Order: sequence, then C-alpha cells, then structure tokens
Amino acid sequence: MAFLASDYPVITLTTDFGERDNYVGIVKGIIKRINRRAELIDINHNIPPFNIPAANYQLETSYRSFPEGTIHYAVVDPGVGTERKAIAVHSGDYFFVGPDNGIFSFLNRRNIKRAVVLNNRKYFSAAISMTFHGRDIFAPAAGLLSQGVALEELGEPLEDITSVKMASRRRTKGGFTGSVIYIDHFENLVTSIRNQDLGTRKGIVTFKGEKIGFLKRTFGEAAIGQVTAYINSFGYLEIGVNRGSARDHFKAVYGDKIQILFASA
Amino acid sequence: MAFLASDYPVITLTTDFGERDNYVGIVKGIIKRINRRAELIDINHNIPPFNIPAANYQLETSYRSFPEGTIHYAVVDPGVGTERKAIAVHSGDYFFVGPDNGIFSFLNRRNIKRAVVLNNRKYFSAAISMTFHGRDIFAPAAGLLSQGVALEELGEPLEDITSVKMASRRRTKGGFTGSVIYIDHFENLVTSIRNQDLGTRKGIVTFKGEKIGFLKRTFGEAAIGQVTAYINSFGYLEIGVNRGSARDHFKAVYGDKIQILFASA
Amino acid sequence: MAFLASDYPVITLTTDFGERDNYVGIVKGIIKRINRRAELIDINHNIPPFNIPAANYQLETSYRSFPEGTIHYAVVDPGVGTERKAIAVHSGDYFFVGPDNGIFSFLNRRNIKRAVVLNNRKYFSAAISMTFHGRDIFAPAAGLLSQGVALEELGEPLEDITSVKMASRRRTKGGFTGSVIYIDHFENLVTSIRNQDLGTRKGIVTFKGEKIGFLKRTFGEAAIGQVTAYINSFGYLEIGVNRGSARDHFKAVYGDKIQILFASA
Repeated sequence: MAFLASDYPVITLTTDFGERDNYVGIVKGIIKRINRRAELIDINHNIPPFNIPAANYQLETSYRSFPEGTIHYAVVDPGVGTERKAIAVHSGDYFFVGPDNGIFSFLNRRNIKRAVVLNNRKYFSAAISMTFHGRDIFAPAAGLLSQGVALEELGEPLEDITSVKMASRRRTKGGFTGSVIYIDHFENLVTSIRNQDLGTRKGIVTFKGEKIGFLKRTFGEAAIGQVTAYINSFGYLEIGVNRGSARDHFKAVYGDKIQILFASA
Repeated sequence: MAFLASDYPVITLTTDFGERDNYVGIVKGIIKRINRRAELIDINHNIPPFNIPAANYQLETSYRSFPEGTIHYAVVDPGVGTERKAIAVHSGDYFFVGPDNGIFSFLNRRNIKRAVVLNNRKYFSAAISMTFHGRDIFAPAAGLLSQGVALEELGEPLEDITSVKMASRRRTKGGFTGSVIYIDHFENLVTSIRNQDLGTRKGIVTFKGEKIGFLKRTFGEAAIGQVTAYINSFGYLEIGVNRGSARDHFKAVYGDKIQILFASA
Repeated sequence: MAFLASDYPVITLTTDFGERDNYVGIVKGIIKRINRRAELIDINHNIPPFNIPAANYQLETSYRSFPEGTIHYAVVDPGVGTERKAIAVHSGDYFFVGPDNGIFSFLNRRNIKRAVVLNNRKYFSAAISMTFHGRDIFAPAAGLLSQGVALEELGEPLEDITSVKMASRRRTKGGFTGSVIYIDHFENLVTSIRNQDLGTRKGIVTFKGEKIGFLKRTFGEAAIGQVTAYINSFGYLEIGVNRGSARDHFKAVYGDKIQILFASA
C-alpha cells in the first residue's frame, strides 16, 4: 500500500459523540499513543444521535476531499455492545473504520477492494468496554492502519458490508419526488434529489404545499428573506432562505417530502 | 518570503460555517491535499451567520497571537456566487485569504504590502460551485500560500481592499458612546469603546438605563451575581456579570448603545 | 525528562471557554509561537462555566489515554485575577498546567513528583491581563514544557496542591449513595458511584423515587425508550435511556442523589 507510506497519514473523524464531552479527545489520544505522526481532522461530531442516514450524507460528500490514503473513522453506533460487527474497509483510495450498520452504504460495491471484521485477538483482545468501542476497537484500528499495518492483519475477511437504503427518491410522471435528508447549520434543507436526476430539464419545486418555483444558481441570487431552491455544492437539491431559516419557515423535519415537476420544454 | 519557509506553516480558520456539518472538515481536507505539512488551527466557526463586524472583532483580537507567516483563512460570505471579489492580502507578517466584503477592515492600510484578486486560471479554473467558495477558491489559495507560492502568482493585483465602518464609537461632551459589537460564550458584552479612548481618566458606565459605575480591573473583583464593567484582555470595554449572564440581565443584543461619562478629576 | 524528547509533544486542552469565541484559538497560537512542533488536541471546551468537579471528571477519565509525556492544559478559572495560584504539576508520566483551585484533585498525591507556582519573572513578567491567564500564563507554560524546559525552571516549588472533595459517595447500611457528577451529550447521567464500590455484588438502583432495577451491561441491552443503569466505560455508574434522554426523563440536574441497595446473596 504505497500511498500509506506518507510521513503524515491523515485520519478523519465523524461521530455523534458531540462536543460537550471528552469522548473525541480520548479517541484522539488512543490514536496518538499508537502513532504519533497521525494527523487527526474532525469532519463532524454533531451527527444527530444514531442518525445513520445523516452520517452517510456527511461522509459521502466529504471523503474524497482528503488526500489519497486517508483513513475515515466513522462511529454512529446505536448497536454498540450488541451483535453488530466492527469493520474496516478499503475502497478506492481510502480506508473506512466503523460499525457495520449501514454507515458506509454510500460506497460503491465495485470499488471495495477488501473488508474485514475487527476481531484479531492480537490487537483487540484486551479489556473491551460494552459502551465505548469508539475508544476500544475503532481507535486502535485506525491507528494501526495509519502505521501501515495491512487491513487483512486486523481480522477475518468479510464477504459484504451492510447497506441500507438511505432515502426515498423516485421518478414520477412529470418529475421527481424526494425527501429532506439533512438540515445544516444555516438551517438549509438538503433533499435526496440530485443534479443528475434533473439533467438539463428545468423544474418547478414544491415543498410542503408551497410552490418555490424554478431552481436558482445560488441562494445569493434570491432577495433577502426569500425562499430558494438550488443545487448545492455537492450536487443535491437544497432549499434555503437567503439570510433566514428554511427550517423555521417550513417547520421542516428530517423526512419531509419534496416534489419537482419538469416544465414542458 | 523567508518566514514562510517553515516546516510547519500554520493556517488558521475563521468562518460562520458552524460545527454541525462537514464544511470545515472539507476545507481542511482540500488544504491537506495541497500541502500535507500545513497545520490547521480553528479560531472560530461560530461567527453569527453573515455577521462581518463580529468576524472582524474575532480576527483583529487574535491574528497576532500566531507565529509570523501564519495564513489566516476567513470566510463569512453572504455574497458568495455574486460579484464580490475573492482576495488574498499580505499585511505585516501575516497573510489573509477571504471574500473582499470588509472582513479585513481591521487591517491598517499602511501595513498592507500586497493584495490580489484570486483569479489566476491556472489555480482556480476548475469547476467552481456557486455556493462553496470556501472549498473551491479560498482553501486552495491558503494551501498554495502555505507551500510558498507567491501571493502575486494567485491573481491580479488589487489597488485597495474593501473596508467597512465596524461600529459607532464617538467622543461626546463629557465622555464616549459606543455599542455592543460581540457577545461571548460567557454572555459577556464586548463594546466598541477601547482602553485608549479612556486614557487615565476614570469614567462611570451606563448601559440601557442602568448605571454600572466605575470600571473594575476584572469581573472577578465583583461579587457573585453583580454587574461589572472592565477592560477585557484585548483592550475593549466589556460588561459582565460575575458567574452570571450579562446578556440575560440586560436582554442585550448586538448594537445596543453604551455611554461612559468621565468623572471630573 | 527523557520521555519529553519526542519530536511531536502532545498538549491537550480542557477549558470552559466554549467554542463560540476565539479564546481557544488564541491559546493555540501562543503555544505555536513558542513551539511549532507541539501537537494540540482538544479534550473539552464545554465544561459548564466554572464547574470544577465536571472538569475533574473529564480530566480524570481521559488523561491516561494520551501518550506518556503529554502536557494537560486545564483552565476552568473562576478566580482569575484574584489570589489563587497558577501552577504546573508533574505527576506519574504526565504534566498538568492550570489554576490551583482543585481542578487537579483527582491526582493521587503519591504520584506527584513535583509542583511549582508559575512565577518565574523570566517567563511570566510581561504584561499579564487580569482576565485571560489562559493566554498570558498557562499557554506559555505549556509551550515551554513542550520544548523541554524543566518544570522547576517555571517557578518556585509548591508544597502541596489544592484538593477539593468532588462529590458525596458513601456506604450505607445496605448499599451506597452518590450523586450526579456529569451529564453528557447523550443526556446520560454519570454518578459518583464506582464499579469498585459494588465489587461482585448485585444492586438495585433507585433514582429520584424511581426504581430502575439491576445494573445492565450496556444501555443497548435495554428496550428503546427504557431507563437503564450500567457501569460506563470509565467505571462509573451511569443512568441512560436507550435512544432517549435520561436528563429529561428525570428532570435531572448536577448533584441529584442516587441510591443503590445490595441484593441479599
């Protein structure tokens, strides 16, 4: 794995641990104990607790922004301490470490080179808590990978990883329907409809009974306080209010339905 | 630029991106793709959305705490996707990268050595989104500067940067008036009045109809629960409640007026 | 101090500075000015303001997860600007820097090798603010230690550090009583009762008049929405609601009492 031979291996972290406690710091400490040269970069620790689809969206839209060889540690883990597997995956030019609960569903199966269950007792046989595998299993796995330990060393091969369907999104007679999959800090609403669903067609967007109109190029084109629909920088249809809150305007929640109706050419 | 020849160039980040999403992580990934040795330090990602004066205050009071040669990435950008320019500035011993919307108004014009518009198509010609220049323009610019690419390589020279008046603050007959420019985590109220406005004069502070009295040296000198005015560690007059919330006590918001009346000697 | 001769000394940061301001960034800048090679890892900046017991719990349960030689910077400092001492401590394989107000009470006195007051005018004689010793005293002290400056260089020896009793916890006729010492991001309630208080005995937990029943191995063993008591990954008795909020369920606050009654064998 030549591209891991970096002097500065990068490990990213995505969790629902929040930022009010020492959980993330402890994970970083454990990784540093194993590899002082690992560089740790936070992606997001405020995934809504146990919300695996939101974690998917955040990982899918960020993992390729990092250098090749980056190890992505992702722990949103409602099943900690139960039967779900702990896994590591090598896909494309990246590595992924986390629970096998669908958190890596965005990975294209054809790009997966190898997946293992983290059960090599040489590395994971010490006292393991029932509630903090992020510290006791996933952090050591990420640290070891960053040192250049081969994936296959960490445990037994896994045939296939768990995949879950993330959000409804389907072609209708005259357009597309989808739903809200993420609400961001600016209170914009990200939906499951993608740029490629629309192609070059223009479409009129309707959300919760309100006709928003045609897509704009950016929320900045709308007047202050106006509702806009646009394709966000990751290629997803997003609804925003210029300098305001689309969440509040629509009293929106995760899962709300959106419709787009193609204009006849 | 000898002082950039560091093995460990520091890049700081100041944004209104919040900490609930992957935006900051993506920016860091992009920088790391360009320069693995760049060290990334967060200053503040919780600037109130689009609040340029608050970003000014946060940058002005922190940029000199960093090593010479540090690159300060600052993106609070209500005009993203519109006509405002993307710029990089070399001022004193530091570099600044961000939108030209007044966010760097605190810089003394006489210290600015060079400013450029980030428009060299060699670096910024690839697909640029309409909504995330923090990723597509500013992150590459910061990464390139940290590698030692000269500022003038990044684009055309800029005559002058945009400057906006940050907050009212003026001499009155017997004292000074100013306004609240920042509310911090401890719910203390930072005002636009500065230590040098007062000199050695003593002054009685009045805020929203309440006479607070003379300045104290520190909020710790006040009794628990008592309102105090003092000069904060950056030289600004600040109002706090010892172990309480000045924001709540006064129902204060950004822009609230403050008066100080000099005591006759 | 051979184990400080690392190329990558780690400094952790634990404060109540929050994440809405530039305070933490400034501290990191000052440390980087002193030692470019220092690696900075956040443990927690959201300690409830001035809550020294909460800071204790967070430090006690994390400091040993870091590499030997790590310097732990911990500043929760209601007495800043008053008479309380600024100190540095060498205990076991770690260093600690912060105010002498009980924040390091978890340290076992027998492991303390050396403690000093940070008063060497060679390092701390420049202009020191009344309100931000985190920047003016503690950051330089941490930076200097990370460079290999000996602890005894930083100031006069200190006989003993301040220790405060952290939380009630005592043996009763048939069991133990304790209290809530920490509420985490998942709204679980950490209590002062420890695993070793129970030994191999089984006990029935009662909290605020509600009988929770026997300890489980993990909150994941409970049904969704069910209240559970279990030993957390740090060895403390914790109360949680599977995918819910124990804080809300019990309207719990810091200091609430808990009882455990041993079952007769």
